[in-house]
Amino acid sequence: MAAPRVELVVVGDELQSGRVVDTNSAFLGRELAQRGWMPARRVVVGDLETDIRAALEAAAGADLVFVVGGLGPTPDDVTLDAVSRATGRPLVEHGPTLRRIERRFRMSGRRLPALSRRQARVLKGCRLFANPVGAVPGMILNWRGGRLVLLPGVPAELRALLEQRVLAALEQALPTAPLHSVRIRTTGVAEAAIATRSRPILRRFPSVTCGYYPGTAGVDVVLRSGSGRALVQCRSAVEKALGRAVYETGERDLAEVVLDLCRQRGIKLATAESCTGGLIGNLLTDVQGSSACYVGGVVAYANELKRELLGVDEATLAVYGAVSGPVARRMALGCCRALGADLGIAVSGVAGPGGGTKEKPVGLVWTAVAQDGRVRSRAHRFPGPRRAVKQRAAAAALNLARLVLLEPGRPKR
Amino acid sequence: MAAPRVELVVVGDELQSGRVVDTNSAFLGRELAQRGWMPARRVVVGDLETDIRAALEAAAGADLVFVVGGLGPTPDDVTLDAVSRATGRPLVEHGPTLRRIERRFRMSGRRLPALSRRQARVLKGCRLFANPVGAVPGMILNWRGGRLVLLPGVPAELRALLEQRVLAALEQALPTAPLHSVRIRTTGVAEAAIATRSRPILRRFPSVTCGYYPGTAGVDVVLRSGSGRALVQCRSAVEKALGRAVYETGERDLAEVVLDLCRQRGIKLATAESCTGGLIGNLLTDVQGSSACYVGGVVAYANELKRELLGVDEATLAVYGAVSGPVARRMALGCCRALGADLGIAVSGVAGPGGGTKEKPVGLVWTAVAQDGRVRSRAHRFPGPRRAVKQRAAAAALNLARLVLLEPGRPKR
Repeated sequence: MAAPRVELVVVGDELQSGRVVDTNSAFLGRELAQRGWMPARRVVVGDLETDIRAALEAAAGADLVFVVGGLGPTPDDVTLDAVSRATGRPLVEHGPTLRRIERRFRMSGRRLPALSRRQARVLKGCRLFANPVGAVPGMILNWRGGRLVLLPGVPAELRALLEQRVLAALEQALPTAPLHSVRIRTTGVAEAAIATRSRPILRRFPSVTCGYYPGTAGVDVVLRSGSGRALVQCRSAVEKALGRAVYETGERDLAEVVLDLCRQRGIKLATAESCTGGLIGNLLTDVQGSSACYVGGVVAYANELKRELLGVDEATLAVYGAVSGPVARRMALGCCRALGADLGIAVSGVAGPGGGTKEKPVGLVWTAVAQDGRVRSRAHRFPGPRRAVKQRAAAAALNLARLVLLEPGRPKR
Repeated sequence: MAAPRVELVVVGDELQSGRVVDTNSAFLGRELAQRGWMPARRVVVGDLETDIRAALEAAAGADLVFVVGGLGPTPDDVTLDAVSRATGRPLVEHGPTLRRIERRFRMSGRRLPALSRRQARVLKGCRLFANPVGAVPGMILNWRGGRLVLLPGVPAELRALLEQRVLAALEQALPTAPLHSVRIRTTGVAEAAIATRSRPILRRFPSVTCGYYPGTAGVDVVLRSGSGRALVQCRSAVEKALGRAVYETGERDLAEVVLDLCRQRGIKLATAESCTGGLIGNLLTDVQGSSACYVGGVVAYANELKRELLGVDEATLAVYGAVSGPVARRMALGCCRALGADLGIAVSGVAGPGGGTKEKPVGLVWTAVAQDGRVRSRAHRFPGPRRAVKQRAAAAALNLARLVLLEPGRPKR
């Protein structure tokens, strides 16, 4: 059976002017995609009755039309009027809803404002769903061979109505065809190279669709299929082709993966950051329970601190400069010593936009990881503005730590 | 002259499936609304050429059509092909863009993957805008009596292209009807309290509209008016009513304000972070030129590091516990001493979700700021998940530093 065609009509001036980011559509999209009801199109319009009606006309004929927002009490909320005209259904006052609204106002010790009666209006003959956290009910009505679902735009109300009432009702009415999906998280390899390596495999699995999503730490490859079996086979082949660029096939981020590797090996971790300025420590401590492995770090922004706190010797700084392999390596070794850790992660680089030279241009970053007196380092050259360089440098340093932890023959404690 | 009709066509499966929240449209909407070019409609479709073409057809005839996303290197990026078909303009390889892409790969020491050539394709005869932070150029072409603007969907690239290139070009071509606006940035006071204090003033200025935007560091109050004179008067009255909660009326963030105060006073700054784990250092070093004042910091996640690196004595830790005023104060003093700074910012708290007790619940955070041997501290209780507690704690610590720096009688160096 073919997947139902799903359309979203989203209403609100605040979405057009950018005052509010439309998180409702993402939430709704996730819930629908999970059930095999991927939205084909979403149209966002302002609080203008003619624009809302035009959007409804364009969506007519779909199996499911969601209309979100513009159901508030004030005169600029005209969604109900637009739906009433478009569907030819009159608006009627709904006694139980009006009493619910009156009760809500009584509870908080306020009088019912005259405008709030507007929120008790419903489309005649529709199916109603009481709102668990707000005034306006959800509504479902049959329209032009499909179903039209009306929901309030207040995020908490939309969520509660969908999760507790509306999705269950739709599941009884429509066939679900859950789309299986997996995410393969990679780091250190460019998007185009990831795609080049994956393509020959994807050709062998025509039922699997693939998307590439570059983020701050690397590229996520998302595979989707109606066939769980094809997905499992395709995933393991893509994983194999991408090799050690893959750091995760679940939900963990790179910092979490590094912390888990340390935890499994009983290893204490410390950081020595220059150009990243604390970002690596911040990423590590974003992970719940990080204190079990991460002891702390030094942000050695000034060269004196590289000497005094991390024991980088004067001569090395003078000969090679702060942004160099030898200094990054000594920072990594020094932070193990100074902070009593087994594994030390260090970064030194030129974040820019100032401070670059011909030999050491903006974007040049050295990462180093020390473990038990042994140290590995790498040079990188990252494009982009200051924050992007910092983020890429932090990801590269965490990735180097991951690779060192995965090396065969490394001692486990 | 009538305002131009503006339409947005936004492309990406990840937006339909809810994997990604569409922040680009909000950013674009804000920039356009400020110029009097409020978007009338936005259509979001997946990576399907037929759907993109249908959306383009529906937008044809508008004065400005923005097409965002689907310009990546991989085969699922088909926006250019759809625009080429819809407009009848062939795609050609653009030499300078190809060379920019090759240079980016060369810089980072990688070979150009064959797929990346796709990103050098442009529409024949369009106006090109080089991308300051990525590969794909922005494009503007004349189409059906209006202009079609093509932009990449990577948020940093979209932003940079708009701010540095495309908006200026459009301003020369289209009439603007600017709405004046100012932003008053506050920290440390709740949104409802900010609104309560501002309301009596706003009533006196009916031409001024006001929006409240809570963010990680505090609440931004945005005033808008067609009358510049009313706006200036209203702004200074609101600023006065909000008092020292206001940290900025321009574009600087809180870290930048603290760094500027230090720079003006010739003061060196250091950090001692426990529960924020490096976030304060990261925020400070996000600011270009921060190395002039910020010497570095210690992330003392483990208690031993609070003792060894910051000189917090055993007895204070034993009697009061790590999350306490006395420990935060000693951390602030200790980081001045250990890192050779004039001003020390310290944080110790329970970020959660674990680790809370009845006396020291999740969300309890102590901040302290030391200057020249004197130290001020404050206790806070922040709601929300781990990352939110960390962000609020970092903002509170930076704000305490701001207030200490602004105290009369503080020595200037």
